[in-house]
Amino acid sequence: MAESPKIWKVTRPFHLECGTTLPEIEIAYHTYGELSSAGDNVVWVCHALTGNAEAADWWDGLVGSGKLFDPAQYFIVCANMLGSCYGSTGPGTINAATQKPYGNNFPLVSIRDMVAAHELLRQQLGIDKIHVALGGSMGGQQVLEWAILQPQRFDNLVLLATNAQHSPWGIAFNESQRMAIYADSTLLEEGNSEAGKKGLETARSIAMLSYRSYDTYQLSQTDADDKLDDFRASSYQRYQGLKLWKRFNVFSYLTLSRAMDSHNIGRGRGGVDNALRAIRANTLVIGIESDLLFPIREQERIAKGIENAKYTVLESIYGHDGFLVEFQRIDSIIRRFLFSPEAKVDASPRPSQAWNVSNVALPGSEKF
Amino acid sequence: MAESPKIWKVTRPFHLECGTTLPEIEIAYHTYGELSSAGDNVVWVCHALTGNAEAADWWDGLVGSGKLFDPAQYFIVCANMLGSCYGSTGPGTINAATQKPYGNNFPLVSIRDMVAAHELLRQQLGIDKIHVALGGSMGGQQVLEWAILQPQRFDNLVLLATNAQHSPWGIAFNESQRMAIYADSTLLEEGNSEAGKKGLETARSIAMLSYRSYDTYQLSQTDADDKLDDFRASSYQRYQGLKLWKRFNVFSYLTLSRAMDSHNIGRGRGGVDNALRAIRANTLVIGIESDLLFPIREQERIAKGIENAKYTVLESIYGHDGFLVEFQRIDSIIRRFLFSPEAKVDASPRPSQAWNVSNVALPGSEKF
Repeated sequence: MAESPKIWKVTRPFHLECGTTLPEIEIAYHTYGELSSAGDNVVWVCHALTGNAEAADWWDGLVGSGKLFDPAQYFIVCANMLGSCYGSTGPGTINAATQKPYGNNFPLVSIRDMVAAHELLRQQLGIDKIHVALGGSMGGQQVLEWAILQPQRFDNLVLLATNAQHSPWGIAFNESQRMAIYADSTLLEEGNSEAGKKGLETARSIAMLSYRSYDTYQLSQTDADDKLDDFRASSYQRYQGLKLWKRFNVFSYLTLSRAMDSHNIGRGRGGVDNALRAIRANTLVIGIESDLLFPIREQERIAKGIENAKYTVLESIYGHDGFLVEFQRIDSIIRRFLFSPEAKVDASPRPSQAWNVSNVALPGSEKF
Repeated sequence: MAESPKIWKVTRPFHLECGTTLPEIEIAYHTYGELSSAGDNVVWVCHALTGNAEAADWWDGLVGSGKLFDPAQYFIVCANMLGSCYGSTGPGTINAATQKPYGNNFPLVSIRDMVAAHELLRQQLGIDKIHVALGGSMGGQQVLEWAILQPQRFDNLVLLATNAQHSPWGIAFNESQRMAIYADSTLLEEGNSEAGKKGLETARSIAMLSYRSYDTYQLSQTDADDKLDDFRASSYQRYQGLKLWKRFNVFSYLTLSRAMDSHNIGRGRGGVDNALRAIRANTLVIGIESDLLFPIREQERIAKGIENAKYTVLESIYGHDGFLVEFQRIDSIIRRFLFSPEAKVDASPRPSQAWNVSNVALPGSEKF
């Protein structure tokens, strides 16, 4: 798969919301397709917690040749978020002051900081207008922040399974994961190639619970026999933990987890509702009914707060992970939003009732 | 509070379902009130994961002078479950073979094993008939097992927020907690008075998520200001972890967590539905609508499987913890079940529709 991302080095100080300044930053990104001469074909994808810039890989149901966002038609950009371990500056970066990776000393990065980095890249790429910005979960948090910072920049937003402010519930899930990472006393052992492994594995195991649902476990992890111990669900948790350990940096995980907690579009803007009123783009908000971590009331709140926003609820057993799984249905919903004019004149005081998934043709719904 | 529990030593081998034999066991228990001459006033309470034999303490809304289960009227028994750290044999017990506590080497105990210990105590106390057996969560698992093992022994069962077989979802939650405990490499350090502390704290933090709900966190852990970090929900998780560490044994936690996973009344009995058909007692099943860990479909399944069972769903924001919080409403529901004859002649093919909490006077409901 994966070609390496492009890396753009910004050789000037980057000021973080927490007050710390990074002396310079690198932004890793992928682009697909070409910017049109009119500059009107930009699709900007923001990835979620453990994702990367390669949108055509992790979101291959929506991005790629023959897909809704086809490089033959669109100029698609996805940048690795600040603090991650997939190319952009983060805890794995060498700290010039110590000549060692930042590790546990990487400063607090906020969603707003990530958006500030995206904004630098946008200018660098000569993009004036973003036709569609989209993201799920933490990706949606970035899209939302950006559209508030630059209301005129965006024609369309697609926000999936995201929120306007990270909830105490979400913070408690993230804190439990950080506690697991810090419970692993190998975390700071220099020269130990497995330092922090068990902690990160546990964190992922916890996170999986918040991404899935009772039903997904029931369907996929039920044991057939009369076991007393060693259940499939246990192996599954350990396996998911190990898989993440193999591909992720534990300090990036801590950094991004704190960034997610910091998310509050209302901070310094007189509250969430006030912030939402700044958005000028056509907005589609998609919730997933079984989403435990970002329950649909959070998407409903966003949709209610943005003028003329469309709001759709996907019925899916996949919980929060639905935004990475339900490609056919998401494709169908976004197509209707972008290409079906009557959808755009549809207006109702309560978006959740006006624009419901039951009205949409769902090629994938018979799967369930 | 707490007088010490009585301890009864069973000085003969105790065979566990896993194949291991304990050379002897101790059972810690509390009794309240006196056994009537007719022997018809026994209330047996089974406690949940981190509970103890002192039912009048942790369930003081239901057990105690002037309460529904009043020692002036009833002979109330509650035994500490095998594997716990509150007096019954468990990982903190000295292993005669090594002259050290069993610790991490304590054998696998099942819910059926716990019930076998309760059964020994019942005989020891000269109890022939149990008028009401009740328990929530893991306590309900024990009541259910017992009523299947000895169908004629029980007049009435009250099962709260429990299940007939522990779910893959529940097992995945428990596995995440065990992963956290084993991620703490201090766990097996002899002579370290804080060995396993961070692991157990993390496990409790994870468990709290499964006991509560998005709403309880939203109501109690929202931050008023524009913080970037150090959120209340984070402190809350750490505080709950520390609180458990101060009162619980980490190896008992592992043991009981595995016991919960092993729960399957259908094991060796031709499945859950077959097992449920053995129950002869009048049964009341109470679910809590917001229960994430033991969702109400699990209680509905129990109620459907037991002849003439009554089924009630409590609307509560407290999630699984509702069974330890919603005293007034639970009191009211149990009183109706035990004392209101018309409730008992109520019969419907679908218990969930026949016996609904909306029909019950709820003195506590105005709190919410």
